[in-house]
Amino acid sequence: MSGMIILTEAELRKIIGLDLDAVTCVEQAFAALATKAVAMPPILRLDIPEHRGEVDVKTAYIPGIESFAIKISPGFFDNPKIGLPSTNGMMVLLSSRTGLVQALLLDNGYLTDIRTAAAGAVAAKYLSRENASMAAVFGAGMQARLQLEALTLARPIREARIWARDAAKAESAAAELTARLGLPVTAISDPRRAISGADIVVTTTPSEAPIVQAGWLEPGQHLTAMGSDAEHKNEIDPAVIADAGLYVADSLKQTRRLGELHHAIGAGLVAPDAVFAELGQIVAGRVQGRTSDGQITFADLTGTGIQDTAIANLAFARANATKAGTIFES
Amino acid sequence: MSGMIILTEAELRKIIGLDLDAVTCVEQAFAALATKAVAMPPILRLDIPEHRGEVDVKTAYIPGIESFAIKISPGFFDNPKIGLPSTNGMMVLLSSRTGLVQALLLDNGYLTDIRTAAAGAVAAKYLSRENASMAAVFGAGMQARLQLEALTLARPIREARIWARDAAKAESAAAELTARLGLPVTAISDPRRAISGADIVVTTTPSEAPIVQAGWLEPGQHLTAMGSDAEHKNEIDPAVIADAGLYVADSLKQTRRLGELHHAIGAGLVAPDAVFAELGQIVAGRVQGRTSDGQITFADLTGTGIQDTAIANLAFARANATKAGTIFES
Repeated sequence: MSGMIILTEAELRKIIGLDLDAVTCVEQAFAALATKAVAMPPILRLDIPEHRGEVDVKTAYIPGIESFAIKISPGFFDNPKIGLPSTNGMMVLLSSRTGLVQALLLDNGYLTDIRTAAAGAVAAKYLSRENASMAAVFGAGMQARLQLEALTLARPIREARIWARDAAKAESAAAELTARLGLPVTAISDPRRAISGADIVVTTTPSEAPIVQAGWLEPGQHLTAMGSDAEHKNEIDPAVIADAGLYVADSLKQTRRLGELHHAIGAGLVAPDAVFAELGQIVAGRVQGRTSDGQITFADLTGTGIQDTAIANLAFARANATKAGTIFES
Repeated sequence: MSGMIILTEAELRKIIGLDLDAVTCVEQAFAALATKAVAMPPILRLDIPEHRGEVDVKTAYIPGIESFAIKISPGFFDNPKIGLPSTNGMMVLLSSRTGLVQALLLDNGYLTDIRTAAAGAVAAKYLSRENASMAAVFGAGMQARLQLEALTLARPIREARIWARDAAKAESAAAELTARLGLPVTAISDPRRAISGADIVVTTTPSEAPIVQAGWLEPGQHLTAMGSDAEHKNEIDPAVIADAGLYVADSLKQTRRLGELHHAIGAGLVAPDAVFAELGQIVAGRVQGRTSDGQITFADLTGTGIQDTAIANLAFARANATKAGTIFES
């Protein structure tokens, strides 16, 4: 009755990468969130504690965009014990006009990796100093690598540092990134030392206790925290919000519930209804971003359905243009 | 990286039908809801008013069941104008242990039709009189037909009536059902007369204003209302709850928000926190169902994620047993 395109992870990797187009599509989605009647319902969350599993379902409709994505993101944290990745998942792309399924993006989380990194580039573009050249990345996983790569798309990064709880992993990520990005990346074992002198700090860990402490950030630094995408995750000392001259949420509704802001509210340092800027408002020019070279800026990224809808639309357009994927009728 | 089965609507129609197995699997799912630590998060709902569209995403995990479904149900009410059905959708079946996608059930809503009808059979089995033989069905769509067929699986139905706003559609549904079920089905143009003398009344319309009025139900009748699956839908006069000796929800959390109960609460006839039995508690024997032949019983069915998980598991088991579908690697 309806035809849809099925795209595998391998096919998606061929047509979507972390490049300026990906950054631009996510940037425009953030702007839409601030300027259009975007529908982005609260995340649907299912927990399966007996298997250390959780599933998030995110979606968002952007007026004027032909399709919207529904993303299914499972995280099952015992999977590595049996040789499977913890996270995987897929996206379903539906027509905004008819609700018909247009594409199944069997990306195993790849598109999420890309749109998450792209949001890091957008945050850096609008919040860090223009001449930011030294980056410090916390974490040594896939997203740590992608965030550093994303920064190079937005700023003239010439040098980077990596801190991770597991020093060996930090060393190996540093070596890999040095080779891949063609700039010196050094593993640093002391988190405060990693931050000192950096222009941009990005945290990408699944930590449940703060790593970045109050008082560590220096004038002019930009911090993007993107590890906290669930209530129990917490990378940044709640008091850091007071250190920052500008705190920016990807979605204030979400960061109040599950971002770093949520911990600052929980600690009584921020009122539950305190209003902060959203990244999209800054992208759209409705709210000013960084106001001085000495300001400390802090982007709290929890990951939003609009980013999924944006990257899925880009993948669908590219698949149509290149005739990638398999047509399936049902 | 992971292999999954893709099943089309045609393939699903070959392996799943409205039969006792379908009823039993849904019945067991309701019992699980009352007896196990089922996880069933609130429905994720996205509205696209400019295209008269809406999407519901439902899910539920039942401990001990190997897989859980995430169902995507779009309804786009301008579709018929361009020759497309209003509702369609699909289910994704994931492993409860690893979160890996096991199957894509491209059913265009077929499995929802079956599991919804099966719930009607379960309600009749536990709430109507055992010798119920006369059914009255409101509505003339697919679900009206399936609900009548479902009743024949649970009770010795010998005769039926159909009322629908559009009398011609009621006539044609009556003729079709007479032929298909081998029992006399008559279209009746007056809703009150359709109810009078029936043993079981099932309402399946998308009505936004009550059709069944207070005082119409007769001693011993059982009413199942399953049309109201959204806040604005309302088939039953809120005062009917007072007529019924026993009101039963499929999920009390849901009927308080979007079932007929929600309208009774809105009308101030029922306290928002009033406690009622759930169908699963009755199936599991934890709460008594019908207590006398003269009692009026009322089942308020909004459709639950556990029904989706139940029918999707049945489809997956049958697909594996019959090697139906296409294996896809991603």
